[in-house]
Amino acid sequence: MSDSQYQQRKAFFDQLLTIYGRKPVLEALQDPAILIYKLHLASSNREDGIIREIKTLAEQRQIDIEIHDRKALSRISKNGKQDQGIAADLQLSAYQPTSTITKTELSNNKRRYIALDRITNPQNMGMIIRTVAASGIDGIILPRKGGAPLNALVIKASAGTLFRAPLFYCENLAQELLRMQADGAALYGLSSHAKQSIFDNDSNQSQIYILGNETDGVSKAITANCDTMLKIPMHNGVESLNVAITAALIAFLGR
Amino acid sequence: MSDSQYQQRKAFFDQLLTIYGRKPVLEALQDPAILIYKLHLASSNREDGIIREIKTLAEQRQIDIEIHDRKALSRISKNGKQDQGIAADLQLSAYQPTSTITKTELSNNKRRYIALDRITNPQNMGMIIRTVAASGIDGIILPRKGGAPLNALVIKASAGTLFRAPLFYCENLAQELLRMQADGAALYGLSSHAKQSIFDNDSNQSQIYILGNETDGVSKAITANCDTMLKIPMHNGVESLNVAITAALIAFLGR
Repeated sequence: MSDSQYQQRKAFFDQLLTIYGRKPVLEALQDPAILIYKLHLASSNREDGIIREIKTLAEQRQIDIEIHDRKALSRISKNGKQDQGIAADLQLSAYQPTSTITKTELSNNKRRYIALDRITNPQNMGMIIRTVAASGIDGIILPRKGGAPLNALVIKASAGTLFRAPLFYCENLAQELLRMQADGAALYGLSSHAKQSIFDNDSNQSQIYILGNETDGVSKAITANCDTMLKIPMHNGVESLNVAITAALIAFLGR
Repeated sequence: MSDSQYQQRKAFFDQLLTIYGRKPVLEALQDPAILIYKLHLASSNREDGIIREIKTLAEQRQIDIEIHDRKALSRISKNGKQDQGIAADLQLSAYQPTSTITKTELSNNKRRYIALDRITNPQNMGMIIRTVAASGIDGIILPRKGGAPLNALVIKASAGTLFRAPLFYCENLAQELLRMQADGAALYGLSSHAKQSIFDNDSNQSQIYILGNETDGVSKAITANCDTMLKIPMHNGVESLNVAITAALIAFLGR
């Protein structure tokens, strides 16, 4: 395989998202807008109603079906306890590496992204994806590891919008944020201790808003590199907002 | 008892919110900002650590303790299955009847409220209370019945902000909304099918935004009386937002 062939194949596989569980896989198959690269079944599955329905849909859509032993399937799903003997590789329409957010992109436009630094609650993750997708801002930036995995719980909490939300993934969030900063984006960390309000931020640069972990906020390493820390002004002695609410206010209101 | 004494007593008891369960009651006792009228214990409670802690705190704060048999306690908590033998009547600092939102109030000011028409999920209810409290708008209007009860789940989901959120209760939401409309408020129902965006609404009247049930939206009777139905404009084929997200956008919008 030549180097460029390898890069192409790598880019293709990087864009696949593996989901698992009967209901999420069935729902993905029922949605013609979702491209499915491959269906994986455990040989131990009983041929009951939902498995038959899944197989029939996959055959109608001419999707490759691979049969694995139970162990091999759990290596694919990476969650043997919850995969229910089924997984599928999805080609999400708007799931791509952050390398596609280039210097030209960042410096010639006023782009807006929300970056997720260790959001661990799948409910929050799903709600953020749904809200950001609805808002029409340019996307969500998230590392492949260190946050809630994009699994059935997140798909459900996203009300199925995960499949078409503009998601940009990277391996190392801190590094990639630094790179985008160098390429023209301003980095704004959210913190309830910040002095400046998100509503008083009228920069003309491309903007990346960073939301931190539900308990301890934006990590120190990333905070150190932020241009400015921003808060949402709060009344009535309320000390913090749910992270998905914060994401919504940034996505829809902070312009 | 004279008529005015009766009215005063009624107003006092109307303002009490009864919560139940060991942890919620303990947390309420630990917060000096929360006024507690009475503590109710079932005679069947074992004197374990948390019950002793609760009793000690109540004695230190000179709060009346009443002991009931199990059945009487479940009539007080209205949830015998989950009360764990304990309930408390709270005097919330900002829990009052909608009758306090008078014609003078509505017609001489530009007030903003969010009314909840059958929000049934306690997570959503709590998140709405927390967000609206933080936003500083004038309050949440909700009927006493027909939505998620203000119980331990809601308190937890509100991150404790229920105790200081501006909550206005009524018996019949549809009727009370009509009254406030006659007294000068504009009624806006939220619907994803509406034509006008919440971002294009620049009325100078007092405003009441009505959020409907998670599944079927604002009820028909209330919709019929709305001045205008409003939507949140959405991208990427997203069909709806979580109701707490919608509440957040409205609450923080007209700053």
